[in-house]
Amino acid sequence: MRTHYCAEVNENLVGQKVELVGWVNSHRDHGGVIFIDLRDKSGIVQIVADPADSTKAHKVAEEIKDEYVLKVKGLVRLRGEGLENPKLKTGKIEVVAEEIIIENKSEVLPFQIGDKSVNEELRLKYRYLDLRDPNSLNTFILRSKVTKAIRDYFESNGFLDVETPILTKSTPEGARDYLVPSRIHPGEFYALPQSPQLFKQILMVAGFDRYYQIAKCFRDEDLRADRQPEFTQVDVEMSFVEEDDVIAAIEGMIKEAFKVAGVEVSLPIPRMTYAEAMEKYGSDKPDLRFDLPMVDVIDEFVDSNNEIFSTIAKDKKNNRFKALKVPGGDKFYSRKMLKELENFVRKFGAKGLAYIQVKEEGLKGPIVKFMSEESLNKMIDKLKPEVGDIIFFGAGDKKTVLDYMGRLRVKIANDMGLIDENEYKFTWIVDFPMFEKDDNGNPTPLHHPFTMPDMDTWDEEDFESIQSIAYDLVLNGYEIGGGSIRIHKEEIQEKVFKMLGIDEMEAKEKFGFLLDALKFGAPPHGGFALGLDRVIMLMTKTDNIRDVIAFPKTQKAQCLLTGAPGEVDKSQLKELHIRVKKPKADNE
Amino acid sequence: MRTHYCAEVNENLVGQKVELVGWVNSHRDHGGVIFIDLRDKSGIVQIVADPADSTKAHKVAEEIKDEYVLKVKGLVRLRGEGLENPKLKTGKIEVVAEEIIIENKSEVLPFQIGDKSVNEELRLKYRYLDLRDPNSLNTFILRSKVTKAIRDYFESNGFLDVETPILTKSTPEGARDYLVPSRIHPGEFYALPQSPQLFKQILMVAGFDRYYQIAKCFRDEDLRADRQPEFTQVDVEMSFVEEDDVIAAIEGMIKEAFKVAGVEVSLPIPRMTYAEAMEKYGSDKPDLRFDLPMVDVIDEFVDSNNEIFSTIAKDKKNNRFKALKVPGGDKFYSRKMLKELENFVRKFGAKGLAYIQVKEEGLKGPIVKFMSEESLNKMIDKLKPEVGDIIFFGAGDKKTVLDYMGRLRVKIANDMGLIDENEYKFTWIVDFPMFEKDDNGNPTPLHHPFTMPDMDTWDEEDFESIQSIAYDLVLNGYEIGGGSIRIHKEEIQEKVFKMLGIDEMEAKEKFGFLLDALKFGAPPHGGFALGLDRVIMLMTKTDNIRDVIAFPKTQKAQCLLTGAPGEVDKSQLKELHIRVKKPKADNE
Repeated sequence: MRTHYCAEVNENLVGQKVELVGWVNSHRDHGGVIFIDLRDKSGIVQIVADPADSTKAHKVAEEIKDEYVLKVKGLVRLRGEGLENPKLKTGKIEVVAEEIIIENKSEVLPFQIGDKSVNEELRLKYRYLDLRDPNSLNTFILRSKVTKAIRDYFESNGFLDVETPILTKSTPEGARDYLVPSRIHPGEFYALPQSPQLFKQILMVAGFDRYYQIAKCFRDEDLRADRQPEFTQVDVEMSFVEEDDVIAAIEGMIKEAFKVAGVEVSLPIPRMTYAEAMEKYGSDKPDLRFDLPMVDVIDEFVDSNNEIFSTIAKDKKNNRFKALKVPGGDKFYSRKMLKELENFVRKFGAKGLAYIQVKEEGLKGPIVKFMSEESLNKMIDKLKPEVGDIIFFGAGDKKTVLDYMGRLRVKIANDMGLIDENEYKFTWIVDFPMFEKDDNGNPTPLHHPFTMPDMDTWDEEDFESIQSIAYDLVLNGYEIGGGSIRIHKEEIQEKVFKMLGIDEMEAKEKFGFLLDALKFGAPPHGGFALGLDRVIMLMTKTDNIRDVIAFPKTQKAQCLLTGAPGEVDKSQLKELHIRVKKPKADNE
Repeated sequence: MRTHYCAEVNENLVGQKVELVGWVNSHRDHGGVIFIDLRDKSGIVQIVADPADSTKAHKVAEEIKDEYVLKVKGLVRLRGEGLENPKLKTGKIEVVAEEIIIENKSEVLPFQIGDKSVNEELRLKYRYLDLRDPNSLNTFILRSKVTKAIRDYFESNGFLDVETPILTKSTPEGARDYLVPSRIHPGEFYALPQSPQLFKQILMVAGFDRYYQIAKCFRDEDLRADRQPEFTQVDVEMSFVEEDDVIAAIEGMIKEAFKVAGVEVSLPIPRMTYAEAMEKYGSDKPDLRFDLPMVDVIDEFVDSNNEIFSTIAKDKKNNRFKALKVPGGDKFYSRKMLKELENFVRKFGAKGLAYIQVKEEGLKGPIVKFMSEESLNKMIDKLKPEVGDIIFFGAGDKKTVLDYMGRLRVKIANDMGLIDENEYKFTWIVDFPMFEKDDNGNPTPLHHPFTMPDMDTWDEEDFESIQSIAYDLVLNGYEIGGGSIRIHKEEIQEKVFKMLGIDEMEAKEKFGFLLDALKFGAPPHGGFALGLDRVIMLMTKTDNIRDVIAFPKTQKAQCLLTGAPGEVDKSQLKELHIRVKKPKADNE
């Protein structure tokens, strides 16, 4: 129906006839001549309907309204001098309409295309109008291209794209599964997969050697700005590999994917141990676009004359004493703002926020007097503070201190504008603990129970010291993916289950088919999963995941466009042998 | 962990050391020397463990069993003269083991790898062993490559890969939906999509212009050898196009996809109207690897002296009188086999099966004497029978005759070996009826209610004569895909709903969001969906769809590997506000 896309019309076509289709982006009557900005996927071109050229085309143009669908035949000409629009790709030319056909009309829109100030619910209800915004379209063009680059990368490296099932059985990822009642097996349910984890491991046992899939995954959890109930994961698994092999393969993918978004990632991506990340940044997903590391000063408070401090400092295993030097922070933060910082950390369990201001006249702050001169000097040696700096202190229970000091670090960077929004700082976090303590002090897997422990660190007496061969990929403070080497030997798997207090019966019931598979020649294998939605979020610098998903769901797990979920026929439920027992509304 | 894949080891590496990993495909002791066929994704290579070369490696080799996972270091050498194996890619060389490490052991397998004679249920339960068969692996390598070729094709033609939701609302495809109870909206359900139909149309209204997706779709219907409850569809939609544009785009995809399977498809693919397909082949998915067309002979029986025949022949609208000439058929079919053919067509509603045998001495068969000489001559002119041929006749109600004669045609082709299994015969079927009669004689859409009718054929009085702008792609007797131009104008959509007896309320409830979208400048658009599973079936010449799906479900909608579906915790159901009411077993 067209000879060109709108934005393809350029000076080279001057004097030629073109046929274009698209939407009326805007139109105006200027002294009896009607100017139309016609928009399609490619962009905008100006159409001129002048009665002097074609009375018929002009007559049709008089009827048009915004978002009408037009077919236009016309002649390309240069715009008059001074009438060029440098903002438009097609700004040097215009198309003189010889024929205009209204392909379809439009009612008045509930909101202007591209107006993001209107209520998001309204935009999502009319998602097709919301998506007409060229910025939205560009997000999905980018997403499509990134996906393609990822696929190209894996295909050219010998990975097989294998589809794993959506109607499956619960996997032990820990979140809630979506359930699907089975009509053929009354009373039984399928689960939608939280990831293809077990299936990709099975493919390795089957000898597929290298697998990837861009897979839909599901978690029936409450929604957040960065979490949708269905999400997309770049899923990878490799056989006969060690950690370095998987990391190298994923780095190659990252490079290709980000190249599409105009970001050059230099390889190898640096690695940081989990312990270092926690101790320096108070997070296993540190934002490294700025540094501001925490420094350990616990030794400097063992001899403190403040008993609270010295008590804390004496238990180096369970407690932390951290200093966070902020260059220029004393100049930046007023007394009032410092009070706000204190209130901020209190929300995360801090009892207060001590600090030392570095003035021309010397260090200022109550904490100074609690330190011996020797310790103070040692600390100054470590921190090398300069006039205008401020040093914040966190002390107490390890987990709490690392958490609130890590958050404080990020808040300060935001406050002081230390973050370059155009930077992409990747890091691997490695050497994760295999287990963490649950609320009852028992071991629970930090990743999943199929993660290979580093057997050199195995310690029956101190499960917290056991490391796993697991790795997360972190970008700008977000975990964008993670993976591990998996257990391929039955005896190690049994050891892990025993540590977790999972007995044979339970193991068999939950993951029996994987355990069976390990008995028949499972190769060493490992893999990775990348959160594609989040990657696109970071590439497009949005903090709303709904911007990168064509048909998103809202906080209330509702698709505003379709109205899903919805009621269904009783007969359908009867066929599934299920009954709904709705909770009574509050006013009943 | 390896320097090469097994089948990469060749004569060029003779004298070099390699490190290989893989499974013990077989092993044998030959005069104290152990020969191991080591297998990985790429194929097989022979390992030799000779105590004269390495006592240590030989000692390990003595322990191995089939399907053990090995790591082998060794030296590549040419096999001795006469010991070459021309069947193996690596048949000219062998690897002398210097070190063998058992990476993992294997229990005795429940069946031999590649043995397809064992019970399919057992093979599916141990799917990872079933998939170790190189033939299975090759199917999934092909599938991955075909998918990639399809993606490459669409990407290079400006199509966007857009993900549509899996948790959605029922769409009007007619089959049963899988339902997913919503936890956040008690008593409400999501439906898994039978196709992304409405979403892709919404993307066109959003101005995305060209969309494709390789999409998972779901139908809660009973399983068959060629039908799985979840299936994969190559889904396409284009704006500002007519039928020819969509057909050309799809033909390009088909060419690229089949090229991967070594099949050269010559374009354009021929087109046949629905009417012609039905009249000549009695099917809207004719197998054109052989011809055997039915010929209309109704005019030749109007003057028949047999009243039953002449009565049938007088109602040319509702009845058919078809002749099927089978060259050489008289020589091929014995009297007993002809009786079997009659029994065959009776199963599909035929009252009998009349035929004329073409003998040296002339036409033989009771039907000859029911025809006037003039009509008989006319028929001979049409059919040009030769000695040795047989002509079958079908007469009666149109639908019944076309159906059983079409089936007879296929049966004869199979009986007589007329089908070349290596041929791929594509055809488009076009000009479908818009509506067909339901059991009550009312109009029901042949495709779906968003299909664009050919408005030139619109006839309020005779809905059966209205054609739609729809097209199916047929290969070797299978419908592999279909599509249509969609309605983009509200007033046409209303006309169609009115014809279907769907009132405004019902339309709004079922597809309200699409109808709304048509009001805001919907472009002309159309699309297509290809059944990928079936395409891979045809490429790999299997008639079992489970061969082309990595983790298939069986007739009973059960995944034998995982055991899904399964029981779930009562607490989970409680959270979803649903109760299961199982039907009583027969013996209760």
